[in-house]
Amino acid sequence: MKAVVAIDSFKGSFTSGEAATIVAQTWEPFGIECTAVTLADGGEGTSTAFMKNQPDGEWITTKVHDPCNQMILAKYAYFPMRRLAVIDSAEASGLQSVITKTGFVAPDTTSSVGTGELITAAIEHGAKEIVVGLGGTGTTDAGIGLMGVLGAKFYDAECKLLPAQVTSLSQIDHLDLTQVVTKEVRIIACTDVDSPLTGPDGAVKMFGPQKGVLQEQDQFEQWFQHFARIADPEQVGQVPGDGAAGGLGFALRLLAATRVSGFQLMSRVTKLAAKIADADLVVTGEGQLDEQSLHGKLPVQVAQLANQYHKPCLCVAGSIKIPMATIQQAGFITAVPLIHNITDLATAMRQGKQNLQIVMERIAPLLNN
Amino acid sequence: MKAVVAIDSFKGSFTSGEAATIVAQTWEPFGIECTAVTLADGGEGTSTAFMKNQPDGEWITTKVHDPCNQMILAKYAYFPMRRLAVIDSAEASGLQSVITKTGFVAPDTTSSVGTGELITAAIEHGAKEIVVGLGGTGTTDAGIGLMGVLGAKFYDAECKLLPAQVTSLSQIDHLDLTQVVTKEVRIIACTDVDSPLTGPDGAVKMFGPQKGVLQEQDQFEQWFQHFARIADPEQVGQVPGDGAAGGLGFALRLLAATRVSGFQLMSRVTKLAAKIADADLVVTGEGQLDEQSLHGKLPVQVAQLANQYHKPCLCVAGSIKIPMATIQQAGFITAVPLIHNITDLATAMRQGKQNLQIVMERIAPLLNN
Repeated sequence: MKAVVAIDSFKGSFTSGEAATIVAQTWEPFGIECTAVTLADGGEGTSTAFMKNQPDGEWITTKVHDPCNQMILAKYAYFPMRRLAVIDSAEASGLQSVITKTGFVAPDTTSSVGTGELITAAIEHGAKEIVVGLGGTGTTDAGIGLMGVLGAKFYDAECKLLPAQVTSLSQIDHLDLTQVVTKEVRIIACTDVDSPLTGPDGAVKMFGPQKGVLQEQDQFEQWFQHFARIADPEQVGQVPGDGAAGGLGFALRLLAATRVSGFQLMSRVTKLAAKIADADLVVTGEGQLDEQSLHGKLPVQVAQLANQYHKPCLCVAGSIKIPMATIQQAGFITAVPLIHNITDLATAMRQGKQNLQIVMERIAPLLNN
Repeated sequence: MKAVVAIDSFKGSFTSGEAATIVAQTWEPFGIECTAVTLADGGEGTSTAFMKNQPDGEWITTKVHDPCNQMILAKYAYFPMRRLAVIDSAEASGLQSVITKTGFVAPDTTSSVGTGELITAAIEHGAKEIVVGLGGTGTTDAGIGLMGVLGAKFYDAECKLLPAQVTSLSQIDHLDLTQVVTKEVRIIACTDVDSPLTGPDGAVKMFGPQKGVLQEQDQFEQWFQHFARIADPEQVGQVPGDGAAGGLGFALRLLAATRVSGFQLMSRVTKLAAKIADADLVVTGEGQLDEQSLHGKLPVQVAQLANQYHKPCLCVAGSIKIPMATIQQAGFITAVPLIHNITDLATAMRQGKQNLQIVMERIAPLLNN
């Protein structure tokens, strides 16, 4: 029997790669041959997933500015044969840089410039195609920092050049994209976030608070709305994905990026469909299987792909909050909980790897017949 | 797909019959046709298991003495066609009668006479074959009370007739079994307890404390040893099963009873083997699957029978305390825990039925393919 194991990370317990390894090792003695697939949803981990699944990759490290204007070392994946670079926006513009012991850094001082610098570095290195994984950022600047470093010019009504920073957004009267350095390359913005730039589901209202946009929220929302009207008069930032990574989705679209679904790109990179087609069973999973899971989260997308190939898909979950009928509607044949004895949440999470092993061991004899 | 469901009771959660019904109802929508088998291990519940599985049975109620010499109503199962009576020793001589609010009744005042009276009543009713299920008793009298009421006479060295009670045991010099009323009937002592009458695994040392034989333990052991030497000079109470039900196993053997394994008798009565032969899967289970389970407890015996017919046997358990290798050595393909979320023991037991349903529902899709 052959199984494809593509489990999302269980935060606090194990990574996607660790989960796949545990299942493969546990099932091997039962005659179940596992193909481990390390998955990411197009946000953090996109470059790592490419490195694990594509030949000839190398990490390239360069100095860039973090969201708070500090110089840091950041890396991206480069594939010389395809002249492809893969950049995680969380690498140079990550959330960890804006969280201090006393709270968040003031959001109007942070910038996505570092991700723009990584793109510039990749172009200078020779990249012709650049995948940018959107997610895990600490910035909410509508991507103006990134655009600026890539050559965009922003002017006020008196044609005065404005600094490429979030506090300039409301003063922008017109912009000039003729000099951007991304013209000769193909940019692919990779995300599963469907949010627009503005509005209740947008970059400010929905994702701002987790990055420290709190009392500034209404002001930021007005800035973003103004910028969308000026820079994108037809769609005004309402294209799904514009709101990803604090508005980097919007900025990259203005720079003619193509948007792809993170899951679909990852599936292609990992040859997930071909692996599923060759397997008898697909195993996926995530920390908590709940109503939210049904709205396009990774395990459900894996299940849908498995179902396209008429393969049963089993979901492993730290906890299961939906009834069996819903589990099956989501495309799983069934779901298996990791909890199997009297325990508390902290212990269960700490023993996550061990629990995964025990539960997979117990279920194996039922599969292989 | 066809399954035989033969689950032991989970004390505090559900009976054997309830468990079988829950599994059958849960699996029906998945196309798994269940045959429910209510099992007992030959102790308590033997008469009920016969009534559920044999035609033409009736309950007969009669007045007998409980262990403390109180008159109580007690019943036995009677099958007129076969002239068969089935008696649980716990019915007339049950543990519940010797437990008071302040502790145990003094063990040297309790007697198994009531079970003897039920046997007498069954013989008078016309029984030619009498099954006595040994287990759940509150008496530790080496069966002298039962023997006395059935016609055994006990004498001291001066040929003085002794009262048939536990305090007489040490004075017995010889006994007369010529007048016992069981001569014309076949008595079957039904138990899975392998203990001898005396010694560290015997009726006094191993089972006495749970019936209130505490500071009297050494004295009781001496009495029992003396009685065994006098009444059974060749085997001296060392036959496996002699120690069942406070020594009722020994007493019934002196009265020429045949001993049968409770599980084997129950299997025959419930036609378990034939049902297993006709099924694709066997489900059994018990509250806790541990090292003790491996020593002949009910689920392991079910597994061994299933294995004889080359059928996979699945074990459901409240908690699982043994590793997978041991689970499989015991004859199970795997074991499934009822715990599936963060909970405490009391809640888990209270929600036992609901947990059984949820867990069976989740496992069903993996079986039926």
